[in-house]
Amino acid sequence: MNVQVLGGLTSNFGELWDTSPRSLVRETCYQLFKNTSLPKSKIDAVLVANMLSSSLGNQDHLGAFFAEELGLNVPAVKVEAACASGGMAVHLAVLSILSGQYKNVLVVGVEKMTDYKPELVNKALMGAGSEGEREAGATFSSLYALMATKYMAEYKTKEEELAQVAVKNHYHASLSSHAQFKNQITIDAVLKSPMIATPLKILDCSPISDGAAALILSSDNKNSKVSIVASQSGSDSLSLSQRENLTSLKAAVISSRNAYKQAGITPEDIDVAEVHDCFTIAEIIAMEDLGFFKKGEAAKNIFAKKTWLGFGRPVVNTSGGLKAAGHPVGATGVKQVVEIFHQLNQTAGKKQVRNARIGLTHNVGGSGGTCVIHILKRN
Amino acid sequence: MNVQVLGGLTSNFGELWDTSPRSLVRETCYQLFKNTSLPKSKIDAVLVANMLSSSLGNQDHLGAFFAEELGLNVPAVKVEAACASGGMAVHLAVLSILSGQYKNVLVVGVEKMTDYKPELVNKALMGAGSEGEREAGATFSSLYALMATKYMAEYKTKEEELAQVAVKNHYHASLSSHAQFKNQITIDAVLKSPMIATPLKILDCSPISDGAAALILSSDNKNSKVSIVASQSGSDSLSLSQRENLTSLKAAVISSRNAYKQAGITPEDIDVAEVHDCFTIAEIIAMEDLGFFKKGEAAKNIFAKKTWLGFGRPVVNTSGGLKAAGHPVGATGVKQVVEIFHQLNQTAGKKQVRNARIGLTHNVGGSGGTCVIHILKRN
Repeated sequence: MNVQVLGGLTSNFGELWDTSPRSLVRETCYQLFKNTSLPKSKIDAVLVANMLSSSLGNQDHLGAFFAEELGLNVPAVKVEAACASGGMAVHLAVLSILSGQYKNVLVVGVEKMTDYKPELVNKALMGAGSEGEREAGATFSSLYALMATKYMAEYKTKEEELAQVAVKNHYHASLSSHAQFKNQITIDAVLKSPMIATPLKILDCSPISDGAAALILSSDNKNSKVSIVASQSGSDSLSLSQRENLTSLKAAVISSRNAYKQAGITPEDIDVAEVHDCFTIAEIIAMEDLGFFKKGEAAKNIFAKKTWLGFGRPVVNTSGGLKAAGHPVGATGVKQVVEIFHQLNQTAGKKQVRNARIGLTHNVGGSGGTCVIHILKRN
Repeated sequence: MNVQVLGGLTSNFGELWDTSPRSLVRETCYQLFKNTSLPKSKIDAVLVANMLSSSLGNQDHLGAFFAEELGLNVPAVKVEAACASGGMAVHLAVLSILSGQYKNVLVVGVEKMTDYKPELVNKALMGAGSEGEREAGATFSSLYALMATKYMAEYKTKEEELAQVAVKNHYHASLSSHAQFKNQITIDAVLKSPMIATPLKILDCSPISDGAAALILSSDNKNSKVSIVASQSGSDSLSLSQRENLTSLKAAVISSRNAYKQAGITPEDIDVAEVHDCFTIAEIIAMEDLGFFKKGEAAKNIFAKKTWLGFGRPVVNTSGGLKAAGHPVGATGVKQVVEIFHQLNQTAGKKQVRNARIGLTHNVGGSGGTCVIHILKRN
C-alpha cells in the first residue's frame, strides 16, 4: 500500500475563544503547506472531518466551505462518523489515493465547541447515539459509566486503576505544546474530583474542546519517512442495549484484526498508539480490543505504567489522548494520525518514543458504533 | 475503470407522512438486495448521503445507524456536500472500489424533510450557503433568482423559456411511478403560479421532499450491463458574491470537462442526462456548462423540445428531475445515477430513451459550491 504521510499538524487544542473554524483551518493548513514544502496547487482533493458544525453552527457544505477558504478549487467533501469522523476522513483519503485518481489529499478535521451552551453541545453530541438512548436521557458519560461498571465488576478493577489512565495522559500532555491540559494530576485528584456518572468522575472524562488537525497524504514518496500500511474500519450497533458484550467494542476488535492482517504485523509490533480515551474506561477496553493485553488485564498493566512514556511498550497516547490533549470531535481522529506521524518521523519533541517504528491509531464513534484503525510505519 | 452498477432503486418520492428515515432506507435497500440477487453478506461498505438529519433531526452517525438497521457490520460513513451529498457518496464509493479494498459497496441517500416546519427546513437548507448569504437573509430561491435575472438579461431569455423546463420535467415525471408530481403542467400554469423570488415562480422551484435511493456498485462485472466510466467533482466559492460569473457554475464546467476526458467521450455522445434542476434556470445553465448547447442557447433549445423524451438528444431529466420527481436532498444525487442505470439497462419503463448507451449525471451542492459528474455506459 503506497500511501505516504507528507506532513501533519495540529492547532493548539483548548478553549479557543478568539478564533473561528475558518481561522483554525486556515492557519493550520497554511502552516502545513509551508512545513511540507508542497505548493497548494498540488492538492488534488480535500476531505473535511466534522460532526457538530451542522447542528450547532448551521454551517454545512464544509468541503467547499474550507476549500474556498484555502483557495483550492478541487473536489472537497465532509465526512461524518460522530467522534470517528477524523479517522473516517483519513480512511477515505487513503482509499482515494489507492484508487489512483488523487495523488495528494489534504485531510482536515475541525471542531469549535466552546462557543455554544453546554446543554446545546450535550444535545448535539447525543446525535451520535441511538434514538432510544436520547429518549432515555442518556449521555455519553452515562453510557461509558455503564461499560465501566460492568467491566469493574467482571474484572475486579479499582477506581484507582481507571484514574491512572488520566494521570498518564496528563503526564504525556505536560510534554506537549498543543495540549489543552498541560497540568499533571494525581490519582488522588481524580478520585476526589466531582462525580459525573458513577464510577466516572470529571477527571475520568475528556473535555469539550476547540481545535483543528491536518494531514497531507500522497502516493508520492519522494520526501516521506512515514507510510500508512493499514486502514480499516468497522461498525456496530449504535445502542449499548443491542450489544452482545459491554466490555469490548466489536467494531474495534474486527477492524484492528483486519488492520494487523493488512499490515502483516501483530499487536506486539506496535511501538506507539493513539487510542480513543473519551473516558478512562475506554482506554482500558481499547488496550484489550487491540490485543495489547489479555482480557481483564489492561487496567493493572496501565496502573503498572506499562504504557507510559519511558516505561514500556506500546506507549499509549503520547499526545495526551482525548483526556488531556482535548477532544475537538472532528479533529481527534486526524490528530491521532498526526501524532503517530511525528513519533515515527522522530519529530515528537519531548514526548518522543525512542526508536518508534510502527504506530497505530484507534478512533471510535459514539459508544462504539464506528471504529477506524490505522497502522503507520517508518519507511 | 472497472466499476459496475449491480442495481439501483428509489423509494417513492413525496410527502411521506407515514414513514421514517429508518423504514425508507430499510425498504429501499432490502428491495435492492432482492433485485440484484446479492446476499447482503457480500456488501463490504456502506456510504450514506444525507444533509439535514443532523440539523433537523438531531441524528448523526448515520453510517453506523443505517448499517445496523440493515444488519451489516461493515465500514459505514456519512458523506455530506449539501445537495450534492448523493453524488459525492457515489464518487467516494467509486474510488473505494478502484482502491481494491472494497468489492461491493452500498450507497444510500435519504432525506426526510416534511416532518419539520418550513421555517426550520429553510434555515437548515441555508447551511449549504455562506455566512454572508445567511446574514443577508438570502434563500436558495433568491440566489437562483439572481442567477436567472442575470442570465435572462444577458441572453434575452423569456419567462416562458424557463417555464418550459418545468413543463418538460412534469411531463417526464408523469411517466414515472416514483415521482412526487405526476401531473402534467402548462407554460401558462407556471407563469400564473405564485412568485417566489422574481423571476422564479413556485412552479420554477423544486419541492421539499422525502425519499431514499440506493445503488450497489461493484468491481465484479458478472451480471452487470452498466459501468461507471467517469467520476469527477469540483468545488467553487459558496457565495455567489465571490464568483466571476453568475451564468455558469465553474465547478460544473471543470468537473464535466474532466469527466468527458476520463470517459474518452464528448458531450455529443451523451444520450440521456439527469441534471440538477433545483430551479428551472439551473437546468438551462447546466445544459451549457455540460457542453450540450452553446452559451446562451440552452433556453431556446429546451423550448424547442430538443431535450424532451421522443424529440431529441440528450434527453434530460427523464426521472422528472428535482422539479417533478422531487428533491429529498441526500437522495437526489443517488437517484440520478439510479435513473441513468435504468436507462442504460433498458429498464426505465415508459420513460425509456430508445437505445440509450451513454448517460451522465450532474449533481450540484448549494448554488454551485460543489458539483459531481458521473458518466455511465452500457457494457
